[in-house]
Amino acid sequence: IVKCWKRVKSFGVKAWEIGRSDPRNVMFSAKLGLALTLISLLIFLREDMSRYSVWAILTVVVVFEFHIGATLSKGFNRGLGTLSAGALALGMAELSFLAGKWEELIIIISIFTIGFCATYAKLFPTLKPYEYGFRVFLITYCFITISGYRTGEFVETAVNRFLLIALGASVSLGVNICIYPIWAGEDLHNLVTKNFIGVATSLEDIVNNYLSFNECKRVPSKTLTYEVSDDPIYNGYRSAVESTSKEDSLIVFAVWEPPHGHYKMLKYPWKNYVKVSGALRHCALMVMAMHGCILSEIQAPAEKRHVFHCELQRVGSEGAKVLRELGNKLKKMEKLDREDLLYVVHEAAEELQHKIDKKSYLLVNSESWEIGNRPREEKRDNLRGLFNRDGERKFLEHKSLSEAVLDLRSVEVPKSWDAKLTSENNPAVPAAIILNNISKTYESASALSLTTFTSLLIEFVARLQNLVDSFEELGEKAKFVDPLDQQEES
Amino acid sequence: IVKCWKRVKSFGVKAWEIGRSDPRNVMFSAKLGLALTLISLLIFLREDMSRYSVWAILTVVVVFEFHIGATLSKGFNRGLGTLSAGALALGMAELSFLAGKWEELIIIISIFTIGFCATYAKLFPTLKPYEYGFRVFLITYCFITISGYRTGEFVETAVNRFLLIALGASVSLGVNICIYPIWAGEDLHNLVTKNFIGVATSLEDIVNNYLSFNECKRVPSKTLTYEVSDDPIYNGYRSAVESTSKEDSLIVFAVWEPPHGHYKMLKYPWKNYVKVSGALRHCALMVMAMHGCILSEIQAPAEKRHVFHCELQRVGSEGAKVLRELGNKLKKMEKLDREDLLYVVHEAAEELQHKIDKKSYLLVNSESWEIGNRPREEKRDNLRGLFNRDGERKFLEHKSLSEAVLDLRSVEVPKSWDAKLTSENNPAVPAAIILNNISKTYESASALSLTTFTSLLIEFVARLQNLVDSFEELGEKAKFVDPLDQQEES
Repeated sequence: IVKCWKRVKSFGVKAWEIGRSDPRNVMFSAKLGLALTLISLLIFLREDMSRYSVWAILTVVVVFEFHIGATLSKGFNRGLGTLSAGALALGMAELSFLAGKWEELIIIISIFTIGFCATYAKLFPTLKPYEYGFRVFLITYCFITISGYRTGEFVETAVNRFLLIALGASVSLGVNICIYPIWAGEDLHNLVTKNFIGVATSLEDIVNNYLSFNECKRVPSKTLTYEVSDDPIYNGYRSAVESTSKEDSLIVFAVWEPPHGHYKMLKYPWKNYVKVSGALRHCALMVMAMHGCILSEIQAPAEKRHVFHCELQRVGSEGAKVLRELGNKLKKMEKLDREDLLYVVHEAAEELQHKIDKKSYLLVNSESWEIGNRPREEKRDNLRGLFNRDGERKFLEHKSLSEAVLDLRSVEVPKSWDAKLTSENNPAVPAAIILNNISKTYESASALSLTTFTSLLIEFVARLQNLVDSFEELGEKAKFVDPLDQQEES
Repeated sequence: IVKCWKRVKSFGVKAWEIGRSDPRNVMFSAKLGLALTLISLLIFLREDMSRYSVWAILTVVVVFEFHIGATLSKGFNRGLGTLSAGALALGMAELSFLAGKWEELIIIISIFTIGFCATYAKLFPTLKPYEYGFRVFLITYCFITISGYRTGEFVETAVNRFLLIALGASVSLGVNICIYPIWAGEDLHNLVTKNFIGVATSLEDIVNNYLSFNECKRVPSKTLTYEVSDDPIYNGYRSAVESTSKEDSLIVFAVWEPPHGHYKMLKYPWKNYVKVSGALRHCALMVMAMHGCILSEIQAPAEKRHVFHCELQRVGSEGAKVLRELGNKLKKMEKLDREDLLYVVHEAAEELQHKIDKKSYLLVNSESWEIGNRPREEKRDNLRGLFNRDGERKFLEHKSLSEAVLDLRSVEVPKSWDAKLTSENNPAVPAAIILNNISKTYESASALSLTTFTSLLIEFVARLQNLVDSFEELGEKAKFVDPLDQQEES
């Protein structure tokens, strides 16, 4: 009993959570209850309808959807399906009546043919949105033909059915639109806005994490297989990356909705919202790849990261700023300012690029270059390695040596070069080279990891342009407010 | 009329295409027609059922789905919803009967409450798969209560309804399973197999295109916004990247299906298929990013690509080979061979890494390094640039000069270094530096693009490990055939 009580309790808590997180859930359920009550009352009041009452109830339950667009599209499908099937069934009834004693056979054949054709048509990609309509069409046709055949009241059956469906649909629509309407278009708008903020937050977190060399909680296996995890960074961009199917279903409903609220326009360009979201997703994929850099096994050493600290941070925060700005503009439905939104972030990216040019010796494994000076040094080192045989220690020594050289400032270097050039020039020792190769490969891969992170960040900045372009197109088509005009007015 | 005829013709062609591309579409339509015919025949034969015949037709149309798993799950939902709603409605009828003259009020209130609760429960994420069941529950409850109230025949209505639904469901199931069954599990299997091949082909094409410096048809705007395009490369990996929602729906149905065909096992690990597909998607994202490199504005010069030609090509083709091998193994449902599948590709990747280490001076803009020798050279060059003022020409000259130096073999370099070190050492000239910076930034970005491509490829290889691991897990759980055992048997 205690266990049972616990279950009920956790269920109650969950129900409360769902209601609190989105009060529209509660409203929607109440609305459906209300619509059902209304239709039952109507049926109680008018005795003569009772026989076909099932159609009205069925229509309410089936047509009443969360979003108004969905309700409208289902209602339309249902109406159209019923009407056309009714007409066809009546025609068929006349025809089969003429056939005399073959009537039953003709009815059966017609049912098979219609069933086949309607199902086949349903599979056409272009007719996919009307899938429900085809179903209703089939049900209506079979029902009218069969029950009409029994009773001979084809017309009455068809008309009754249609009237009751119309009644159910109108009750559904009335309740759904008049009381606390839930618009798919608004959901789409909010979804895209939220994605902007999510990606911006993730981007900042990732860059900061990367620089503070915080390895997060290391959940590579989960992220690798693209599964859900509780990583807050992951959750930020996840919605943007995975919202395709959500958007697709929302846009299907949104195009059905009449102008309302902020979207006072016939043929509102919902498609452009999806386009903006697609461009954002393209940026988010870069953020995802950067996240992959943090989670990967091979990591660039902290000192090297530190060199690019300022520049990386600046690009990251400026990039996030641009995303936030776009998100806010979208929320307020304003056009972009006249000035170039991307100027600062492009400048920051160029600076980073510059710094990389200057310090690119940090990113590559210069000691294994094929040009003269280095290999010579390496050979000498290898020789030394052959003597003390301690591969690992030697390698570290070697590395710190060469890095020290690379970090020296201009004035001192020529001397050290000279010193090296005078050193002995022995033939290479293959055995030692092979010994070194493995650790070296990792070494250079770890430096490349920093390059990858940086170039992903720069690619991210490059993709922002596309995002801004699609945003401007949306602003143009959806007639967003121009912030300058607004200022003049007030 | 001509126009109309053309339309009909194109429609016919399309219908033929759909039928030819997947004959199961035709079979499915025919099966639905057959099921409808059977149920109509049954209704014709048994006169007494006719009044409630609508339920049987409705059930057939609604429950008959493309995949058997979907049919089973819908049938189960429908049955459960009807049964529980029937029981509840009968209980409620007893209760409202006791209430005497408040009967109607109680019925109305109960409808509202049930409607609210069922809809609210439907919104629970865990109860999502039973969404349809809740709908049926609501319809049944309202129908039985209302029509029972009129006629007083609660029990008869409930039992009749249930029997007819059971009849419809069994006809659907019988036809759907016995004649040319279409399994969701098999579709899932084929989808994943196809994705493997698609990604492999894309990978090869991308690497080849990159090396032959073929800029494709340059459809960046479309790919950037993640939209559909006709690029064959894109189509290869697209399915793998975008199949999440397809997989999600297929797995929902697949778990409902009984053991069948090659999947002779209770609780077949369909989840692991999705996991393998997730790991593959993770690889495909890298391929997508590489494709982005081909389409991006900044391109590495062909000569530089040519240097890494062999290595890149080898990694690409070996990677594709691994994917193909995995795809074939999956198709044949065999376990992996004992030997390490990834050995060759890892070796190839290491070789590439090595080559990069050796040639990394090609990937960076070494002339702007901060260490002694180069800046000095640069300063001298800048000075010269100040004299002839032709920034662009100077820059090219400068570049070719420094590259020539870098490409020289060991023996000659020391001299050239010496020569440079003896040259005059003038103070820097800031104006000329700024003039150069912009073109230099692009220059080095173009070299970085090659780095990015390479490190993406290496990251791709790294992710293969994860893919192989998840494949092995699938092979273990699904009891794939061991190729060695098979050989012994034969």
